[in-house]
Amino acid sequence: MRTELSDRFGIDYPIFGFTPSEHVAAAITRAGGLGMLGCVRFNDADELDAVLDWMDANTDGRPYGVDIVMPAKVPTEGTTVDLDAMIPAEHRAFVDRTLAELGVPPLDTGAEHAAGVLGWLHSVARSHVDVALKHPIKLIANALGSPPKDVIDQAHGAGVPVAALAGAVSHARHHIDNGVDVVIAQGYEAGGHTGEIASMVLVPEIVDAVGNDAAVLAAGGIGSGRQIAAALALGASGVWMGSYWLTTSEYKLGSAAGESMSTIQRALLGATSADTVRTRIYSGKPARLLKTKWTEAWSKPGAPDPLPMPLQNILVSEAHQRIVASSDPEVVAMPVGQIVGRMNEIRPVADVMADLLAEFDAAAARIRDSAG
Amino acid sequence: MRTELSDRFGIDYPIFGFTPSEHVAAAITRAGGLGMLGCVRFNDADELDAVLDWMDANTDGRPYGVDIVMPAKVPTEGTTVDLDAMIPAEHRAFVDRTLAELGVPPLDTGAEHAAGVLGWLHSVARSHVDVALKHPIKLIANALGSPPKDVIDQAHGAGVPVAALAGAVSHARHHIDNGVDVVIAQGYEAGGHTGEIASMVLVPEIVDAVGNDAAVLAAGGIGSGRQIAAALALGASGVWMGSYWLTTSEYKLGSAAGESMSTIQRALLGATSADTVRTRIYSGKPARLLKTKWTEAWSKPGAPDPLPMPLQNILVSEAHQRIVASSDPEVVAMPVGQIVGRMNEIRPVADVMADLLAEFDAAAARIRDSAG
Repeated sequence: MRTELSDRFGIDYPIFGFTPSEHVAAAITRAGGLGMLGCVRFNDADELDAVLDWMDANTDGRPYGVDIVMPAKVPTEGTTVDLDAMIPAEHRAFVDRTLAELGVPPLDTGAEHAAGVLGWLHSVARSHVDVALKHPIKLIANALGSPPKDVIDQAHGAGVPVAALAGAVSHARHHIDNGVDVVIAQGYEAGGHTGEIASMVLVPEIVDAVGNDAAVLAAGGIGSGRQIAAALALGASGVWMGSYWLTTSEYKLGSAAGESMSTIQRALLGATSADTVRTRIYSGKPARLLKTKWTEAWSKPGAPDPLPMPLQNILVSEAHQRIVASSDPEVVAMPVGQIVGRMNEIRPVADVMADLLAEFDAAAARIRDSAG
Repeated sequence: MRTELSDRFGIDYPIFGFTPSEHVAAAITRAGGLGMLGCVRFNDADELDAVLDWMDANTDGRPYGVDIVMPAKVPTEGTTVDLDAMIPAEHRAFVDRTLAELGVPPLDTGAEHAAGVLGWLHSVARSHVDVALKHPIKLIANALGSPPKDVIDQAHGAGVPVAALAGAVSHARHHIDNGVDVVIAQGYEAGGHTGEIASMVLVPEIVDAVGNDAAVLAAGGIGSGRQIAAALALGASGVWMGSYWLTTSEYKLGSAAGESMSTIQRALLGATSADTVRTRIYSGKPARLLKTKWTEAWSKPGAPDPLPMPLQNILVSEAHQRIVASSDPEVVAMPVGQIVGRMNEIRPVADVMADLLAEFDAAAARIRDSAG
């Protein structure tokens, strides 16, 4: 499985794997894809720097990249305290009441509590870019549309191409105007922030709209080699996969030491493709999450409307920590796509990659037979 | 482009084309696909009989089929008058007020007004089956899940296989248990009645679930040969296309005599993939429609909840006639999928088919190159 794009990036297969785990990202890169480390969880750029040192030592000199979250419009900036003051009391009361009803206990008073995720802020995302460019990264992707022009120029100045997610043709055109090199056409079925047009329609639309101005990756609903073959048939030069790595054995975020499987992984393994919901409760923008008692509570009559980004994530930040600590697979807060229905066992990244390749070859043979 | 399924049906290409127009259905069949005539608009079975006589005379002995609408659960039966009495006054008032606000005039008092669409009723759909089986049809499809077991047995007794739409794996399994021969896996992006799982995820899921018990057609979002190649890559044995034929030159439903293009076609040509909405206002069940001032009116605060099937369609039946008569492309009531963004010119069915084949071959060649 190779395309002009995999050749350009010096990777064996045009599989771009997004993950917040450096262990998964490094394994994807070592297995012949391009591991893309999600940076949004690093409030402290020095911590990211140390993790990227680890990536450099564990990727055998093969290419990897980073994924940042920088909204196209600069959102409200401020310290945690300033932003906290903008959250209505009604919203806090709803969160407290809901957690009590779901049996999610408070955090231990002695434990150190992380601040809300600040990676949504431009200032923090810019610090991620500054740090990442000191490492031999091969791609910077932005999960929320095109980054500002000066950030793209900064990356290009360092010889690093820029990718950006697009949920509509108009987004893709805007990205091209800003100088983006790779457009990630992300369909409705995808996990996390996503639009309303499904991949089957969106991918060829964006391929036609950008022409030779950029390469296109297909994102959303991809968890088998058949789906990779479909993406290439639709005109994409490769695929962007995120959800599917959450049930790899290298994914240890949220697991207690020595645990073979985290609560989140147990919840994912039990879900079908119908068990997701697209909602604004995670970040303030529409994002697809695993459907659980937590997401259902927000869709009941009387639940408040979610707040705009970045306030909503700050509102639910402590709730997310309490939910993780409570270890109940029926109450989790986790972005995942409709492909969760195919995530049914915990396996090493290398095994997942081997299956993707074998399934792709079988699908390609089927197409060859049909074409005659 | 051929598969085991196209060989089994004796058609040149595994393209199953659903359309309410006999002129389009016959053209699809003559061009090497399988034209599937939608029956729901025939309140009178004798009228359907005459149209099928026309089909027999205009398909050169090639295979065609019919599409009925028979809900899995038997809905409320009754004459038009009985059902009319079940519609709340609030709903009638909303429809009247909305039409006035949108500038849609009443019907001419002299004109003959058709009754509401009764094809949703089991009794009427059964009369469609009885009539169709007197003709040399090669397939009966049900647009709303599996028909009752005795209808399947009736078709099988006449040597006619049965197809049924499925929006989830559980539907597909139920269809197989009932004896359905072809499962149409219809994704979220499709026009008309549709579920929430997008084709990229749904098609391989259903292919795996039904195994060798049935053939699978992919439906939803298909309007190019690239998308047909993607569907086959996902494991489907063929495709089911509906929306895409609405902008063929043979489609004359709703056109005044001598008109080169109907109001609905003008509305479709101007729409992008973002201009659809999934709503219950057409029939009482979720269906994807073109987004217009009519659909927007039903999503405003204060609009009533749609009624259950078949009441909702009876409620809006005269409104639909008034909307057609008013010829305003900004106020239409029309089921269509997200592929509407690619429906940008009026062309003969034969030209559409030629493009589908050429695009499929190009996509197959691209996959071949990637597979090496």
